[in-house]
Amino acid sequence: MTVKIGLLGLGTVGTGTAQILLNPTGRNPLLKEIKISKVGVRSLDKPRQVEFPPEVMTTDLEAVISDPEIEIVVELLGGLEPARSLILKAIAQKKHVVTANKAVIARYGDEIYEAANQSGVYVLLEAAVGGGIPIIKPLKQSLGANRITSIIGIVNGTTNYILTKMTTAGADFNDVLTEAQQLGYAEADPTADVDGLDAADKIAILASLGFAGRVKREDVYCEGIRQITATDITYAEQLGFVIKLLAIAKGTEGENSQQLQLRVHPTLVSKDHPLANINGVYNSVLVEGNPLGQVMFFGPGAGAGPTASAVVSDIMNIVAILQSSGENQGLDPLLSCIHQHFCQITPIEAVETRFYARFLTKDVPGVIGYLGTTFGNHHVSLESVVQTGFRGELAEIVVVTHDVCEGNFRQALEEIRNLEAIDSIPSIIRVL
Amino acid sequence: MTVKIGLLGLGTVGTGTAQILLNPTGRNPLLKEIKISKVGVRSLDKPRQVEFPPEVMTTDLEAVISDPEIEIVVELLGGLEPARSLILKAIAQKKHVVTANKAVIARYGDEIYEAANQSGVYVLLEAAVGGGIPIIKPLKQSLGANRITSIIGIVNGTTNYILTKMTTAGADFNDVLTEAQQLGYAEADPTADVDGLDAADKIAILASLGFAGRVKREDVYCEGIRQITATDITYAEQLGFVIKLLAIAKGTEGENSQQLQLRVHPTLVSKDHPLANINGVYNSVLVEGNPLGQVMFFGPGAGAGPTASAVVSDIMNIVAILQSSGENQGLDPLLSCIHQHFCQITPIEAVETRFYARFLTKDVPGVIGYLGTTFGNHHVSLESVVQTGFRGELAEIVVVTHDVCEGNFRQALEEIRNLEAIDSIPSIIRVL
Repeated sequence: MTVKIGLLGLGTVGTGTAQILLNPTGRNPLLKEIKISKVGVRSLDKPRQVEFPPEVMTTDLEAVISDPEIEIVVELLGGLEPARSLILKAIAQKKHVVTANKAVIARYGDEIYEAANQSGVYVLLEAAVGGGIPIIKPLKQSLGANRITSIIGIVNGTTNYILTKMTTAGADFNDVLTEAQQLGYAEADPTADVDGLDAADKIAILASLGFAGRVKREDVYCEGIRQITATDITYAEQLGFVIKLLAIAKGTEGENSQQLQLRVHPTLVSKDHPLANINGVYNSVLVEGNPLGQVMFFGPGAGAGPTASAVVSDIMNIVAILQSSGENQGLDPLLSCIHQHFCQITPIEAVETRFYARFLTKDVPGVIGYLGTTFGNHHVSLESVVQTGFRGELAEIVVVTHDVCEGNFRQALEEIRNLEAIDSIPSIIRVL
Repeated sequence: MTVKIGLLGLGTVGTGTAQILLNPTGRNPLLKEIKISKVGVRSLDKPRQVEFPPEVMTTDLEAVISDPEIEIVVELLGGLEPARSLILKAIAQKKHVVTANKAVIARYGDEIYEAANQSGVYVLLEAAVGGGIPIIKPLKQSLGANRITSIIGIVNGTTNYILTKMTTAGADFNDVLTEAQQLGYAEADPTADVDGLDAADKIAILASLGFAGRVKREDVYCEGIRQITATDITYAEQLGFVIKLLAIAKGTEGENSQQLQLRVHPTLVSKDHPLANINGVYNSVLVEGNPLGQVMFFGPGAGAGPTASAVVSDIMNIVAILQSSGENQGLDPLLSCIHQHFCQITPIEAVETRFYARFLTKDVPGVIGYLGTTFGNHHVSLESVVQTGFRGELAEIVVVTHDVCEGNFRQALEEIRNLEAIDSIPSIIRVL
């Protein structure tokens, strides 16, 4: 029984998806029963790496959705619109949807899941996070026996490439960014990657699945990596850390309910932590739960082949269900998304974390004492204080705190900034 | 709609499974719809960490299977019999089966899968490999779009603990084994672990899923870690390697069909390889495919909590299907097992791999020349030759080869063994 699918978009991932489906030999036999019957694109004239008969290609994207023979719509357009509207229209027409669109799901996941549940169709999105790494389906289907306590990921390959390169080459951010752009690892406008927005989309999606609650994308606290310097990477290295852009979702028991921390920021990661060795464009997601402990998923976080592998696995999952389904079948509760409540988000000031801070100070006696006293007054306890050397006339002091309340730490910093002996505070980075 | 299940066995994993099911708060809501209605054990008098009403507990294992209300039988007895017979009887009675029994599945998987397909029931086994790491379901459901080229795993926690400890402490095998036994990381009879038999069971299962063919357990070539010495670990370290017990399934294109290498042996792994950093009792499986590239799954490979997490996830998957299934539903082809053919296995002599070998030689001029010439005569090309020092009167020489045919390498060794200048060849270890 052949299942007919419609592709929306034939860019990098769309092409990779078509290449797998058109060449099924040596892969799962189910692939032979999938037929791409329509492909919606913006322009018919663009040269393509895969060829379809003219009647398959169309610029009428809505025609792909309304084709009565098509059972699965695969949205690979990217961007918010028309992707969101087309997904909703496909659902309204009772088509199952496979998408790689993290931006749409992170912002409109609720609306989309609710519509899908009403229509009795699946919306699968393995490719939206972690490229080819199976992470969405394991979270839904394999880890639900656990109370998830945290999900911590390196989920943006561009920033991980840049930070890795800065570390190995001792280079500065702007130089590595330019090189990454030349190599195609970073976009001409790198904002979504280097400012952490892409990672924030992804952690919003992972958190909503792992903690089984609705998450508002704007609730994700977000800092990018532009301010990271080669100097901080060197100091981090001396202290036993590497710097990574982490996306963190962490449950904490509040007074009345579970609270959720949601944050993306550069982070000092101890060299013996499993995430410290994830380098280059690779992604990795570490999930911690009870009674499981820690499991980690690692692999290529982007690229045509890996992302297409995830897209096609979603298509196969729906085809497998269609082929085995009986009459009056309902939705599999582990594959569909049902979120009863909004997660309660911990404001960033209330987060408890360790900090690394670098100070430039005038070389006067007692400056370390001033720092220690001021931090102490704000309940900030220090794990280590290192006077690292001199920059011109100024002494450089690096401190690492114990776990402290971010609000207290910020207040202490405000006071320290006003101390006579302090020239400036060039770097403040959280520590995992 | 509550689904009733029967547990066979209430040992470590059975207890962990019951603890999750009896305490569902904060976990996936589906757990609230699962009821343990019978527990089959060998003795009713043994003290237990979980309590059941007397009518639930029974020593009549067959009564668990024949109970008409029970839809899922969870086999956690371990060992070959009566586990195999009970699994087959449960299938014959049209019960779905969840098992953690790698030994039974590795040896009788074919018989069990065939019976299950005929009865229209599922046999799920996530806990059989990698403890709490989701690896079986991802292989079945998430990676099928790819042509899998290799599966390489650290799948035995005991041997990984021993090798890690030998590496960090510079200790010898027997001392670390004794300590591991005292800590409960190794059995009183450590054979199944240290001789690689447990890892061989697991790679047989992973290979049959990843390469979609039948695999005979006895076709897995198997060497354990008893012969590994602190000396070799030190030399490996100097050459940039760590020693790991790897379980390897690797596809190679033969003349007429795909051939499969299946082997378990200690292996020198380059320090920058993702598997080199998997230490202690952790497990990890690296899957490589096209177009995916490499993905790796990492986590706790044993223990009550992690293994129970995998068992319960399998139970949940079946419950989700039961709850959503319509009339005349068939088996989901991605969750059931259908193997058409036996995989063709490459004999170990025909495997191409690199080797590390350590020689003790008399200190005569030209001995390195003899070695090089003899290897060369057998088409064995050397990547590095290091004269490392002296042991008493004897010189110690370590060589690492390029990729060579194992049969050729063995022939060369036979000839070298007879050279006047060679005292002995204490170590031969494959290199990844």
